[in-house]
Amino acid sequence: MHSEELIKPDGRTLTLYSTQPIPAGLAAPSPFAEPQHANPHLRWHPLRGEWVTYAAYRQNRTYQPPPQYNPLAPTRDPAHPTELPAGDYEVAVFDNRFPSLALDAHDPPALDVPTAPANGKCEVVVFTQDAQASLGSLPAARIALLLQVWADRTARLRGHGHIQYVLPFENRGAEVGVTLHHPHGQIYAYPFVPPVPARQLAQEREYFLQHGASLLCDMARAEAADGKRVLYRDEHAIAFVPPCARYPYEAWVMPLAPCQDFGALGPAQRAALARALKTVLLKYDGLWDRPFPYLMMWYQAPTDGADHPETQLHAQFCPPYRMRDRLKFLAGTELGAGMFAMDVLPETTAYELQQVEIALEEAA
Amino acid sequence: MHSEELIKPDGRTLTLYSTQPIPAGLAAPSPFAEPQHANPHLRWHPLRGEWVTYAAYRQNRTYQPPPQYNPLAPTRDPAHPTELPAGDYEVAVFDNRFPSLALDAHDPPALDVPTAPANGKCEVVVFTQDAQASLGSLPAARIALLLQVWADRTARLRGHGHIQYVLPFENRGAEVGVTLHHPHGQIYAYPFVPPVPARQLAQEREYFLQHGASLLCDMARAEAADGKRVLYRDEHAIAFVPPCARYPYEAWVMPLAPCQDFGALGPAQRAALARALKTVLLKYDGLWDRPFPYLMMWYQAPTDGADHPETQLHAQFCPPYRMRDRLKFLAGTELGAGMFAMDVLPETTAYELQQVEIALEEAA
Repeated sequence: MHSEELIKPDGRTLTLYSTQPIPAGLAAPSPFAEPQHANPHLRWHPLRGEWVTYAAYRQNRTYQPPPQYNPLAPTRDPAHPTELPAGDYEVAVFDNRFPSLALDAHDPPALDVPTAPANGKCEVVVFTQDAQASLGSLPAARIALLLQVWADRTARLRGHGHIQYVLPFENRGAEVGVTLHHPHGQIYAYPFVPPVPARQLAQEREYFLQHGASLLCDMARAEAADGKRVLYRDEHAIAFVPPCARYPYEAWVMPLAPCQDFGALGPAQRAALARALKTVLLKYDGLWDRPFPYLMMWYQAPTDGADHPETQLHAQFCPPYRMRDRLKFLAGTELGAGMFAMDVLPETTAYELQQVEIALEEAA
Repeated sequence: MHSEELIKPDGRTLTLYSTQPIPAGLAAPSPFAEPQHANPHLRWHPLRGEWVTYAAYRQNRTYQPPPQYNPLAPTRDPAHPTELPAGDYEVAVFDNRFPSLALDAHDPPALDVPTAPANGKCEVVVFTQDAQASLGSLPAARIALLLQVWADRTARLRGHGHIQYVLPFENRGAEVGVTLHHPHGQIYAYPFVPPVPARQLAQEREYFLQHGASLLCDMARAEAADGKRVLYRDEHAIAFVPPCARYPYEAWVMPLAPCQDFGALGPAQRAALARALKTVLLKYDGLWDRPFPYLMMWYQAPTDGADHPETQLHAQFCPPYRMRDRLKFLAGTELGAGMFAMDVLPETTAYELQQVEIALEEAA
């Protein structure tokens, strides 16, 4: 993998990635001329025991672009620079202009609850230069490259000593609030292990202490043996609807062998994981013959310097639909109590997804 | 408070409540003739350490009612019975026909994850016979009656020995998935303390052990002293935007004195709490001169037989809008990481709500 780090006129960083050498002389454009002034702060929520981040300048983060202007497309008209240059590269990562977390945040307000500077980082990851593509429509080799990019970002973000957790995710579709449909995801680097991964890690740790094995690897083995909910399986990777799905079309994707983070993936595992991921994505889009919205989260070990044999790198997909034309709303019991109520069995949605025929390219 | 418990033709229970005696001879109708067959089950989510409930028969819970048919209105046409009789009563509570939890659930499936019958209860609480009203438009005396009804339901549900937690809530508005706009809420009675209240209780317990006082009472005292985020305050009750709000127009409502649950409220506290609640609701609807959607959750002590001096009865409102025409979507960082990202400061939304003038009826 080749990469090239550039600085935008407003001070933000842009990194270009490719399986091929990146041509010299590319410059990093920005839709914004003035330097960035992001100063988010954290407030402690004493009743939930968690941090909340405040970035008031985000409220008016839209601006008036020309019609058809796509800030994630390569710049074609220098009078209207986008976030990316034209040129030969495959994946691009740049600092979010309106971040919820910022490395140089400072001077949080004094309040009756504890506060802190929101010293993290928010990055945008552009999967392709093609605005009409989607993650699932990209070649498996591109998806494998993306897994390498996530590893590289995790390594770089770990370099800022205080970053405790790196979460790559993709919000896809207007149904989950996305307004920019160019294929892209995000990376949040947190100065603490956030509540959801913290809870998962605690569960994994307890299981590891009791069984001397990874909870998720054992779950994956049981799923592979049972088969009822499996969407993809090869020697190195698996995708399945978990038996405890909280969303009707939830799916998990993971390597079969123990693997703490993106950095620990070998080439064969990456290729298999890319095919597993692409399989889920193609089945999603094939289910109702239209782009299928979802949240995709990639969980890995914290970047706290410790070894985490208890945890397993994996993706969780949380799609918002419960039927073709009905969204699943999170309401009183889900958000207020934390107990998810499902109207459909995981075995049923797994069967539906199993029936979707896809044309997966041949393995290289 | 007067109440009358009736049984519907399909076996479900209906209880009518009123400040006045309820006339004899009212019969409980049902839109459904056949007996209810609800058999939800729980599956353990080993990675999150929480139960998920499955009620597959809920997926097709809509049926084809006649136009304008409102199942929560009093029955006017015996050929099309609703859930409620016509007659003199104020508030009605009945068993949800499509429950996520059921007292007689049995024989859960055997799976690779632990399973259990979903032995809880789901109730519907109709606030008024007037389909055009809203909780906030009802007289404060009706809201005070509702607080008594919630106390009565909690006491009755506690009677089923295994119920550990009773959560009254209201989902309001199409924006949070509500299709039935007759003013109503729900009550979920859980056979365990669900994750969100469990987390809150743990935080309250730790604070109580350290400070010998209630976390929420101390927060309320600090808010009252500061004043910047207060929406209502009298001798007995307070409403404010919490300094750690996770939703732009979040508000909390609570009694000022320590009070574990609805059953512990005295008449003066109930009256004050009703006025505090009505104030928030009227300010919400007044903010943009239109019905304001929200989730309203009422947290109280578990029904586990133990004393809970650490916990404080209170309501949390989670509204889905971040601006007049923009919803706040919960996406990668909120649902995937559990860190909420706010685009607006609690002080700003509190100020906006403080400026909304309302006509609160005089205290009796």
